[in-house]
Amino acid sequence: MEDIQLIDIREHILSDNQNLAAEIRQKLTDNKVFMINVMASPGAGKTSLILAAIKQLKRKYRIAVIEGDIDSLVDSQKVTDAGVRAIQIRTGGDCHLDASMIQMAVDSLDLQNYDLVFIENIGNLVCPAEFDTGAHKKMMILSVPEGDDKILKYPLMFTVCDALVVNKIDTQSMFDFDVEKLKKRADVLNPNMEIFEVSSKTGKGVPFWCEWLEQAITEQLGY
Amino acid sequence: MEDIQLIDIREHILSDNQNLAAEIRQKLTDNKVFMINVMASPGAGKTSLILAAIKQLKRKYRIAVIEGDIDSLVDSQKVTDAGVRAIQIRTGGDCHLDASMIQMAVDSLDLQNYDLVFIENIGNLVCPAEFDTGAHKKMMILSVPEGDDKILKYPLMFTVCDALVVNKIDTQSMFDFDVEKLKKRADVLNPNMEIFEVSSKTGKGVPFWCEWLEQAITEQLGY
Repeated sequence: MEDIQLIDIREHILSDNQNLAAEIRQKLTDNKVFMINVMASPGAGKTSLILAAIKQLKRKYRIAVIEGDIDSLVDSQKVTDAGVRAIQIRTGGDCHLDASMIQMAVDSLDLQNYDLVFIENIGNLVCPAEFDTGAHKKMMILSVPEGDDKILKYPLMFTVCDALVVNKIDTQSMFDFDVEKLKKRADVLNPNMEIFEVSSKTGKGVPFWCEWLEQAITEQLGY
Repeated sequence: MEDIQLIDIREHILSDNQNLAAEIRQKLTDNKVFMINVMASPGAGKTSLILAAIKQLKRKYRIAVIEGDIDSLVDSQKVTDAGVRAIQIRTGGDCHLDASMIQMAVDSLDLQNYDLVFIENIGNLVCPAEFDTGAHKKMMILSVPEGDDKILKYPLMFTVCDALVVNKIDTQSMFDFDVEKLKKRADVLNPNMEIFEVSSKTGKGVPFWCEWLEQAITEQLGY
């Protein structure tokens, strides 16, 4: 009697994705380009935070933004208005960006002209956490109005990220959001994750996060 | 020469799901049970809104809540504390609920003891929109802090829903959220969708949405 052969589609997909992501990362490193994957719920403030970083860092680095979106060009337009190159990936339905999509975007960039690439992932706390995009660092934004319990509900996202930006901190008085409770839970789940309290609207805390980003770039690229 | 045969996995999955959802819906209708699928981003206020409805409607209807969650029991606990039966579906990674998951939950209920079932879907504006769960009505919550542009980015969700609750309306002064702009866009995309401005925190607007829900129940079940 033959053994039953089990083909785990998901495992295959994730493993192929992982290999491709490693290739992308190597290509970026070889070309002295640093890439960071920014993930969050819809409306947590991904575009605003990236725009705040562009403002602070564009004199130091040549920046491009890969924008993931199901259907619209809204965010790409904002980035272009800020004087930065935007590459729009229209997924047409997929709820995350994977390495093959990022490869297309990276291939469309002349890497010699860039130092820093932001990926603005699809607004979703679930699937993006599973897919390595080839970025050197992963970060997430959690906005105060979403609540401090999101770490209990979407633990994988909080586990894979190198940094967590708690955004819209200026609205904390309006919501029951306990930053200390969140920090304690994060410390158990992922003690290496750096946490920043930020308002990309008022600018509060943005420099501390940008400092972390600059340090990560220096560590990776050596300058 | 033979024709190439194309097997569209996604199409198969969605069509199987659709058939199963229709069976579930029929079973519920036969048993005089009304089910509504509540979808939203993480932290938009699904649990709070369902709790507000329970408070207002539990003398009139016998209610159960099917809770979708990747990993935690937080929401089920809140529902149980409100004196209502909760069935927790732990997806362990899937970013949406499908009809086969809901079938398991519905089969675990003695339908003769219930009139109204809420599905609290996974916090995600993408995939849940694609999967019919067997509910009679679909609704979504968009919270003010997420921004009024979400309808441009996640159009399918806004297209499939029968009602849209704009939640956290008490925080409108803190955010740039133009309700009229949202309504105009919604009117183009899905003119049949009812829109309610609500704060489940202060209770503002909740009765109008509950009235819509009661009317939908009456239309479906005839009492």
